[in-house]
Parts: sequence; structure tokens; C-alpha cells
Amino acid sequence: MKKIVISTGGGDAPGLNAVIFAVVQASHNRGWEVYGSRSGYLGLLDHDELIRLTPDMVADITSMGGTIIGSTNKGDPFAMPIENLAGQVEIHDVSDRVMKTFDRMGFSCHIAVGGDGSLEIAHRFATEKGMPVIGVPKTIDNDLLATQLTFGFDTAVSTATEALDKLHSTAKSHDRVMVVEVMGRDSGWIAMNSGISGGADVILIPEIPFDIRKVCDKINENELYDKNYAIVVVAEGATAVDHDVIHKGEGETGRAEVVLGGVGEWVAKEINRCTGKDTRSLVLGHLQRGGSPTTFDRLLALRFGATAVRLAEAEQFDHMVALAGDEMVAVPLADAVEKRKKVPIGGDRVRTATEIGISLGADIVI
Amino acid sequence: MKKIVISTGGGDAPGLNAVIFAVVQASHNRGWEVYGSRSGYLGLLDHDELIRLTPDMVADITSMGGTIIGSTNKGDPFAMPIENLAGQVEIHDVSDRVMKTFDRMGFSCHIAVGGDGSLEIAHRFATEKGMPVIGVPKTIDNDLLATQLTFGFDTAVSTATEALDKLHSTAKSHDRVMVVEVMGRDSGWIAMNSGISGGADVILIPEIPFDIRKVCDKINENELYDKNYAIVVVAEGATAVDHDVIHKGEGETGRAEVVLGGVGEWVAKEINRCTGKDTRSLVLGHLQRGGSPTTFDRLLALRFGATAVRLAEAEQFDHMVALAGDEMVAVPLADAVEKRKKVPIGGDRVRTATEIGISLGADIVI
Amino acid sequence: MKKIVISTGGGDAPGLNAVIFAVVQASHNRGWEVYGSRSGYLGLLDHDELIRLTPDMVADITSMGGTIIGSTNKGDPFAMPIENLAGQVEIHDVSDRVMKTFDRMGFSCHIAVGGDGSLEIAHRFATEKGMPVIGVPKTIDNDLLATQLTFGFDTAVSTATEALDKLHSTAKSHDRVMVVEVMGRDSGWIAMNSGISGGADVILIPEIPFDIRKVCDKINENELYDKNYAIVVVAEGATAVDHDVIHKGEGETGRAEVVLGGVGEWVAKEINRCTGKDTRSLVLGHLQRGGSPTTFDRLLALRFGATAVRLAEAEQFDHMVALAGDEMVAVPLADAVEKRKKVPIGGDRVRTATEIGISLGADIVI
Amino acid sequence: MKKIVISTGGGDAPGLNAVIFAVVQASHNRGWEVYGSRSGYLGLLDHDELIRLTPDMVADITSMGGTIIGSTNKGDPFAMPIENLAGQVEIHDVSDRVMKTFDRMGFSCHIAVGGDGSLEIAHRFATEKGMPVIGVPKTIDNDLLATQLTFGFDTAVSTATEALDKLHSTAKSHDRVMVVEVMGRDSGWIAMNSGISGGADVILIPEIPFDIRKVCDKINENELYDKNYAIVVVAEGATAVDHDVIHKGEGETGRAEVVLGGVGEWVAKEINRCTGKDTRSLVLGHLQRGGSPTTFDRLLALRFGATAVRLAEAEQFDHMVALAGDEMVAVPLADAVEKRKKVPIGGDRVRTATEIGISLGADIVI
Repeated sequence: MKKIVISTGGGDAPGLNAVIFAVVQASHNRGWEVYGSRSGYLGLLDHDELIRLTPDMVADITSMGGTIIGSTNKGDPFAMPIENLAGQVEIHDVSDRVMKTFDRMGFSCHIAVGGDGSLEIAHRFATEKGMPVIGVPKTIDNDLLATQLTFGFDTAVSTATEALDKLHSTAKSHDRVMVVEVMGRDSGWIAMNSGISGGADVILIPEIPFDIRKVCDKINENELYDKNYAIVVVAEGATAVDHDVIHKGEGETGRAEVVLGGVGEWVAKEINRCTGKDTRSLVLGHLQRGGSPTTFDRLLALRFGATAVRLAEAEQFDHMVALAGDEMVAVPLADAVEKRKKVPIGGDRVRTATEIGISLGADIVI
Repeated sequence: MKKIVISTGGGDAPGLNAVIFAVVQASHNRGWEVYGSRSGYLGLLDHDELIRLTPDMVADITSMGGTIIGSTNKGDPFAMPIENLAGQVEIHDVSDRVMKTFDRMGFSCHIAVGGDGSLEIAHRFATEKGMPVIGVPKTIDNDLLATQLTFGFDTAVSTATEALDKLHSTAKSHDRVMVVEVMGRDSGWIAMNSGISGGADVILIPEIPFDIRKVCDKINENELYDKNYAIVVVAEGATAVDHDVIHKGEGETGRAEVVLGGVGEWVAKEINRCTGKDTRSLVLGHLQRGGSPTTFDRLLALRFGATAVRLAEAEQFDHMVALAGDEMVAVPLADAVEKRKKVPIGGDRVRTATEIGISLGADIVI
Repeated sequence: MKKIVISTGGGDAPGLNAVIFAVVQASHNRGWEVYGSRSGYLGLLDHDELIRLTPDMVADITSMGGTIIGSTNKGDPFAMPIENLAGQVEIHDVSDRVMKTFDRMGFSCHIAVGGDGSLEIAHRFATEKGMPVIGVPKTIDNDLLATQLTFGFDTAVSTATEALDKLHSTAKSHDRVMVVEVMGRDSGWIAMNSGISGGADVILIPEIPFDIRKVCDKINENELYDKNYAIVVVAEGATAVDHDVIHKGEGETGRAEVVLGGVGEWVAKEINRCTGKDTRSLVLGHLQRGGSPTTFDRLLALRFGATAVRLAEAEQFDHMVALAGDEMVAVPLADAVEKRKKVPIGGDRVRTATEIGISLGADIVI
Repeated sequence: MKKIVISTGGGDAPGLNAVIFAVVQASHNRGWEVYGSRSGYLGLLDHDELIRLTPDMVADITSMGGTIIGSTNKGDPFAMPIENLAGQVEIHDVSDRVMKTFDRMGFSCHIAVGGDGSLEIAHRFATEKGMPVIGVPKTIDNDLLATQLTFGFDTAVSTATEALDKLHSTAKSHDRVMVVEVMGRDSGWIAMNSGISGGADVILIPEIPFDIRKVCDKINENELYDKNYAIVVVAEGATAVDHDVIHKGEGETGRAEVVLGGVGEWVAKEINRCTGKDTRSLVLGHLQRGGSPTTFDRLLALRFGATAVRLAEAEQFDHMVALAGDEMVAVPLADAVEKRKKVPIGGDRVRTATEIGISLGADIVI
């Protein structure tokens, strides 16, 4: 009989509970036991924080957001911040304590569900400590190169698109410009997918530094078609090229303002300044990480979970489950954590956006 | 044959198009014609901005957000800001020009859909200029005393509650406090209804000045029940009593920060300071004004529209349609615009909230 | 210290769990204990089927459909069907056994959440056996006269309206008539509210026997406005007047077919026969009873639950909580179970429907 | 300047309007004109049924279900049913008339959006009549081998999964078996995806003939886990192996009943007979074809539309746009219409389903 331990690390993503459900069910089906490690590696540091997960306990969790075993962003056992008696935080390597719990509990596999940070830690445990690890990729931003898609992304894009739909009618009725800041520090996937689907006029992404004058040009151009409003989607990591140039004539600097608010707020102010239009900005923030996963994400997460157990059975450790086309595949964890996926500037999304009349705040030549 | 003109004024509210649909259909049914006045009174100032509304044109608009005839917040014909040749804005009384268009077009009734501002203007036209006016109340905040409910409010509350649902799972998985700022400058209806329905731990409303220490106490208390997270709903008009007192000991002032962000952001920072918990804030803003109306709001808006036409037929002018229990009634516009509806501190919502364990940031004695 | 027992009886209604949540929380707040009786009166017959309900257990149930303590349609303790050793079902009065459990457990109040059947049983317990009972009304059909609205109804209407929205686009694109059968055996509330909100062309309700020829006339009339499709909403209890007359000329009877399918299917066939149009029918059935309650229903259910505990505290037994305007009131159970609420033919819904061009399958004179 | 004509044929699928939007915008961007042919080939038969599509006309259609240019299932110009003067229907080849309109209008490309039927006709026009055709695949059932996915499918699966979610709570509260019949005459994609995502206990698909006894076994087995309810998803094309065997002992035949209702109803009756459980069935039908497309389907449809215009520019006719991984590709129409895609019995969906405890009504050996 095998005993598996599962952990969920990093930021929240709709579908985590579906992965847990599938891991528990597919293990139960093979006569194996599953334990959940609370808050990332906490359960592997302290066996009081391990929870026996039975089919009964996970029966209704597939459609729930969040993770029933908790998660955290600050839990690298190779460099764990621990408060000493004097109340000071010291960094300790507690990886051996993790291995001790792992061995004492008789676990035969650790299924680590997490983003690039968590997967890198999992890879270190596999290579440096010999832990039998299987990874399951989780990133709301869809920026892992090793898998075509991950769960949570479709839900985040849907939430953002619904928000655009809601703002559309108000923008139109009141001749307004609405600027929506969505997630995406290093890549513009959420911005591109939601912006194209949600009928945005402008989409600004980290991969394409934008010229605020081109953004304003597009909004002014709308008037030619009797369209007195606009929707602007901005990824949080989007940056302006040379944007202070605009203000130089007025003896101001734009940069200073960016510090106070986010990029969305800055863009909104600039648009108001250039076009004179009533402009409002909104930050979607954590709304994109929460809620019940879409059907698409549920299915993907369930398939990932079942496949992870298959890999555990085949003892194909130090690998991560991934989606390739419509197939489930295993990729080495080493590859998984190394490369990030950017929105390709010559790719189909950028072409489609440009062709259907969306400005990306820059001249795109494809 | 009668000719009716309809206008929609003030901020956006889901259900405006449903009112327009019902007015057009119920008029068509009587053999009457309907015109829409673009952007509030614009169409009544300039007949080029009047649109003939046929059943065909409104066929599919009931479920759409916004208003097909546009709206505006700056359109009081008794004090209209008009730019002169020198580019300066002067205030003019153009109410007589409105009456001239009204008469020349042969309109027999003006159905004015709007908030307290628009309804007050409508009432002036009725009393000072003799315009045959029927009002239809529109306020997302549900703060008109003369009607039990208005359309748009249920949609706004639903949007806010859905947001709370989404944030719930993340808050729980990551042991976080999520602070959500919702609409409500003078009254806490959206905050109360969404907070109770969405499982908030704390609800802060304009009617009850809050003590930030009590808010923090509630969040710390959660720990006793092994609940390491919390959801806090703050109406944009909520104010703290004496909140700088807290910081005085630390030689700081809380006031200054409030200026930079909204009250939600301030509350989030204070909670983080008091409890040490990871705290995030979010402003829902215009999301609450947009989108397809809920079924409840569609029905209410359609009934309002049909009733307005009935009042037009009965020539019961200078009145507003209203909901009383499940009945449609007519109330004098004079009454409608005068009194605002607050969340009653001794009322059932406050009692229910308190009884099911929600803190209102103050000691409530009922 | 008080001990309360709560039961949920009859068909499913979204909001039952919200009532349970509020009862548990409002009792916990007063230092009282709450037990749930499984499957209606089962827990009061056999104390093994009683569950101690703690705040922890109900923490996340408000937004869930169904009832965590189960429900049933066949559980009248005054006439309980019980299988004897020979496998035959005999009817027994087990009401005294219910009272024995009630007393032995030291319960001071029974909060009975249920439809007219369950409330009548509760009333008998109150009057015949002296049980301290508080009722909470539950009927998806909205047909209790004693309360303006009950929870579950808004969700059912929303589900039906969403279905109409979905069918609308297909009907329009393919020039089809779509007939949708919704709940409502004795009253047409769901049909009226969803039909008006969802843009139906025809609404057929039990209160107004319909003439199928008038239905067909309306659909043919649509062609005059270049509208080649139609949406027909039929309450399951709607009946045709004299509808076999139509077929007499053809030597057929329509009645026979009604037996095989539901009224929706029959209406669809007749429309196809009269108009030659491609016609499809759909029965929404249990979809209307399930799912997460709308925000409106959550709030109403939570208020009902908190108010029931207030009545328990005031020892105002043999009463039911009810909504009057926006207020919570108590009405004697005797009144509650006696009278049903029909859609008033001279009322505002019927007028609105008629005025905005919806046929009710009969000539309405108001 | 190019002139493009677009047609939409066959059954409804959410996303058709998004394709139209992208085709119009991407053409407008190149300075081309677009015409819509009403109801499939009707506009190409009679130029009165051609509509000039401008950016203004399609501005808000992306999120709408249906198709603004109409569709039909009976419109093969090579074999068109036409009523003669005597009222009899005769089959005529009117393909030359189509070509005449096409040439006279000066069209340089026909973008045909449709299922395998419509694409086959398009292919005939390309090869037999020399029409410059580009295909865009549309099938709610996801059964075209030449493309990994088509728009409409994700929406249909989401609708079915939402229905399962709604039925889940009722099934659980009332110890019931709910049988849901979903679309899929030849393939079980909708059933598999929605069943796995929606927590079904049993999924029956055309690819795997089911043994009703195994279905009942699974439902009885649930009792071992204290689960007294079940959700059964049945594709409309699922068939039982040898199911009359069960009834032979009772001297009945099951086949006869299948004739009267659908397979879902038959399965429900059999389950009730075998297990004694309260069992209900529901046919989702056209709900799956309607409504606003999911974000996923909107994006896919928009990309398809933009890519079709790119193919038109490159004059790569007699090809169809398709999705391969995350890429847009062109495949010869000849290949597209030939092969259907079945749920592979040895594939990952079947494995995942089996591993997480779902019965497929047969013994699966992988």
C-alpha cells in the first residue's frame, strides 16, 4: 500500500481543490492513502499539520475555489524564516526535517501543486534530498512554458471578461473611458485573452512597451466611428516607453504618479489629460484568483490530478504533469521551472487583436 | 394619438433599458408614439437628438445594461453649463428652450427616469413650466424613501455578493483579511445586503460610525473559532469615529492616509497594523453599475415602465411610479425627491447582522 | 440554556441552508444549542438521527443549494407509512413518539422549515400535542398567502429566465417556436415573472385557462413585425379551454396526447399544427429547485432564520415568520396553511404582461 | 478592393456572432467589404437576402448567442427542396444560381461557417464550381477530427455542468438519482467533459455501449460510502447492450419504452426498477446550443474569424481554419469533412473518469 502526501503552495488558483479531489479518488481507487500537508510544507515539517484525506472529505470540493489544505507564499524549507526567542526572524534550512517527517510517515510520493517557486523547491527536494516528487503546475498567469495551459487561467480570464462586459454598458451610456488593470506582472496572457474576448479598444501588456500617445490616438479615433467611449485593459506589468516626454512640455513628470497608484491609474490619468474624456480606472486584483473554477479549469485540474497519481504509480519522479494539445504528458521538473512563456509578438493573439482593430499601444509589424 | 418622450439621467443602473422597452411597448399597444431624448435633456434642447423608438428597435434590450438613449450627470436645463465663444463655461437657464422643443414636437408627456437630481428637475418642469411629467425612480443605492425598492439595486448587491464569494476562498486558503469597498455614500444598503448574504465578518456603513478597534477585535476573535481570515465590507461613505486616537500613541495620524486612498484602503491598513494579518483591499466601483440586470430588476423595471404609461394615460402628472409591498403606486414627485432612506439602526437588517455574528464596528443596542 | 431543534421538510428550495446557518448562529449568539432533525421528522422519531449543529459545521453553507440535514416528502408523523414484517406498508400515528424524543432531549422549540404540508403538520403538533413550534415558510412556487415572498422563488425565477435567454438566440436564428414548461401546478408565479423578464411572447398559467387558437394567433401575428420566432412559457398546471374543439374538424382529439407528455409538449405540438412552424419543447423541471440561492434569496432566508430565533426567544409559538413589505412579521400558523396565493387576474403582473404585448392565451379585460 | 460574403449554416452554436464580428473587423481593417448571406445560402440565391455588414452593425454582437444573419438546416443548393405551384416539394439543383449571384456581386471569397454538412457543400462549390471558399468549423459536439476544438463546445459543456451542479444539491438532499440527457448523437464529448467536471457517478456515451446492470451496481455501491444519491449523465446517442435481458424474467421488453421517451428516460426507469430509488430524468436539449458564449469560445471564434480573413488574403481556398495546440492552422476541406472524432476508449478522459470512480456502464480495460 502506498501513502501519498499532497501540498498546495503559492498564490490561490481556482482548481486546486479539483486537483486534490482527483488525487484522493485516484489513489483510493488503487487502495492507497493520501495525506494533505497544510500550508505548503508545514505538514511536512510538523506531522500535526498533516491531514488524512478520505473520499468522504473531498466529496464536494471540486467546484470550490481555494484549497482545503491551505497555501502560503512564504514556505521554502531550504530557507525558512523562523522567529527566534528574541523575536528576530532568522533564515534556516529545515529541508532535513521535512525529509525526516516524510520518511517517518512512510510516504512513497509527494505531489507538489504549485507555481514556479514551489516547483523549484520540489525539484531541489528531488535532486538534493532524493524525495520522490511529482509536480502539478499552477499559475494563474499561464506563464509556464512547459505546459500549454494550467488550471485557474481560464477562470481568471472569464472573471476579467465579465468585468469588461459590465463596464462596457456604463462606458457606452456615459461616453466614458474605463481602464481596467488585470493580473500579469511578466506576461500579458490574461490581458490579451480577456481584452480580445471582452471587446477592448486598447490592450497594454508587459511584452510590448506602450506609447501613451498611441493609446490616446486610438481613443480619439473612435470618435470617427461615432463611438464616444473606450475600454482599456492594462496588465499590471505593462510599462510605458518614454512616457515622461509627454509631460515635459508641461514641465511635469509622469513617473512620480506611477509610484502612488498602479499603472492602470496612471494610464487613466494620462488618457483624461490627452483626450479630455471622463476616465475611470479599476483594479480587479484578487477577484481574478477566487471563485468556483470554470468547467474548463475543473476538467483540466481533475485530469492533472489523476495523471499525477499515474506518474506516482509508474514512479516517474522529478517530473511534472503538463498539457500538450489535448494530451497529458510528463515533463522533467528541471525544464518546467526554467522557462517562462511570453505572449509572442509575432503570434496569432497579437495578430488577431491588431486585425480586429485593437490597439496595443505600439506599432506592430508582423 | 399621443406622443411620449422618455429620458434617462444620472448614473448608470441596470434596468434602464427594460424601462425603455416597457414604455415603448405599452405605448405602441395604445397606438402612441415614443421618442427618446439623448443624454438626459439633450434631445429636448435640440430636436436632432430626439430618436423615434419603435418596438423593433427595443426588441432585445431588456437584458442589456446601460441605456440605449445615453445618460449624463451634467444636464440641468435650469442651470446648464455652456461654453461661450471665448471657451469659458457659463451657466444658462435653458428650460424655456426645452419647453419649446417639447411643445413643437407635440409631446403629451415626458417620462423622466432618474435619481433624486433628475427627479427634482422633472418636478421643477412640472410645477414651474407646466410640463406633464411622470417620474421613474432610479438609484443604485436604494436610498429613495418614496419607493420600497428601485431597479438596479438587486443587480448591484448581486455583483458585490459574487465578489465576496470569490474573495472568500482566497481569504480562507491564505489566512488573509480582505476588505471590499462597495457603493453607498450616504446609506449602507448595498453594504448591508451584500455583507449579510456574502458571509462578511464586519460591515461598515455611513449610518453607524465605526471604531476601528472594534473591527480589529472582531477579527482577532475569529481566531478563537480557528478562523484565521476575515471578510470586511465597507460602504464608501463609512466614517471612523475618533480614529486618529489609535495612532496618537504612536505619534501618527490616520487622517492623512485617508486622503490618498478610499476608506477601504485605510481600513485595510489599520487592520494590518492592529492584527498583523496579511490584509488586502479592493474597490468594486463601477462594476456595481454595469452588466445585465438580474431577473428581479428586469421585472421591476418593466413594471415601472408599464405603470408610467398607465399614469400618462390617466394624466396623473407630477407623480412618480413606486413599489409598495408588491403593488405599483403613484407618489407625488414633491415627496419623492425630499426624503432619503437610511438603513434603520433599530431595523431588522441590523438585528439580523448582529445576531448572526457580524460586527458593525460599534456597540449596537436594540 | 435553550436547546432548539430544526427540521426541513418537503421539496428542495435554494436557501434552506441559509435558514439553518442563521438559526445556528443566532442561537449560538444567545448561548443556545441547535440540533438538526434529519429528513424532516426522522430525527425526532429516532434520536440517532439528530445532529448537533455547531457554528463550525455551518460556516460555509449559506451559498449552497439543498439542505445539509436532508428533507423528504413522505414524513407525516400523524400518518407515517411503515413497512411491517410481512413487507406491507401500514399507516401509523407516531406523533407521540416524536413528542417523547422532543421532551427527552429537552428541546424548548422546534423550528419547522417547510411548505404548506409541513407547516400544517407543525400546526397540529402545536395545537394537539402542545409542541412549541415556529414555522419558516418554504415554497418555490410563491403560493403562500401569508407571506409576500419566500426564499427559493427568486432563484427559481432566475433559472427559468436564464433558460429563456439561452433559448431566445436559437429561436431567433432558426425561426423557431420554443415552448418552455416551468413549475407551478396551481399558480403561475414562476411563469409570469420569468416570462415577463425573459421576453416571452406567450405565458400560460393555471389561473387563466388558455385557448390554443389565441396562442397560435399571437405567433402568426409576430410575422407582421418580421419576427419569425416565438418564446412560449407554460406553467405545468396550465390547462386549455375546450381545446379538443380544434381537432374535431379533423376528427382527432387533443386530450389523448396530453396524457403522454406534459402540457408543454402538447402546446408545442398544437402550435406546430396550427402555424406550421418548427416548434420545440423543453421541461425545466428540477433545475428550478437546485443550485446556489440568489443574493435575494440568501438574504431573505437569513432574515427568516434570525427572526425565527427571535420568536423562539419571545416564546411566540404556533406562528410562522413572514415578509410584509420589507418587514419581518409573525403570522399564526393557522392562517398560514389555509390560504393559497394565486396570480390575480386584475393585478399588475397581468396588466404589465398584456400591455407590453404578451399573450396570456385568453382575452383579458381589466 | 475585396468583397467577402459570409454564411452561417446548420444548428446553432454560441460563438457564431463572434466569428462574424472578427470577419467584418479584419476585412474592414484591410479596406474590404463584407456581406452576410441570410439563412445559409439564401442570400446567395437571392441578392435581396444579402446584407452589407459594417463595423457599426456588429459592434456589440461578440457576446450574443445565435447568429445575426440567421441559419438553417435545410439549405443544400445542390439539392434544394422547393415547393412547386401544386404545393408539392421538389428537389432542385440551384448551385448555378448561387454562382451567378456570387459572380454578379463581385465576391472574391465565401467564408462558410458550418458543421460537416455545410462544409461538405462548401467543398463541392470549391471543387465543382470553382468558388473561392474558406471554411470555419462549427459543431457543438466537438466531433470534427480536423480541429482540436471548435467554438460552442465549451459553452455547451459549461451549460451542462451548471445543470449538474444544480441537480446535485437536490439529489443529495432528497436521496435521489438524477439522470441528465445531454447532446451527442455519435460522440460522447459533452457527456464526458460535463460528467467529469460536474461530479457524475455514471457517464454513458455512444462510444461505449452500456450494461444497465453495471449502472445499477454503481448506484447501489454508493450506499457503501453512505452516499444515497447519484448523478447519471447520458449522451443522447448512448445505447444499451442487451438491455432487454433484464426484463425477460418479467416478460417485458425494454425496447418499447425507449421509443416513447429518450434514452435518458429509459435509463431512469430502469434504475428505479433495479434500485428502488426515487429517480428523475431531465433532457437539457436546446439549452446547450444557446446563450452567450463563454470567454473561451469567444476567443476561439474571434481567432477563427480573423484567421479566415488571413486565408482569404493569401487566397488559400478550399481550406478550413482549425486549432492545433494553441496555433491557428489551415486544413484542406476535403480532410475536414471526412473524419469524425470519437472519445478514444484508451484515452485520457476515459482513464481519468474511471480512476476517479466514475462508472461508464461497462468494464474498461486500459
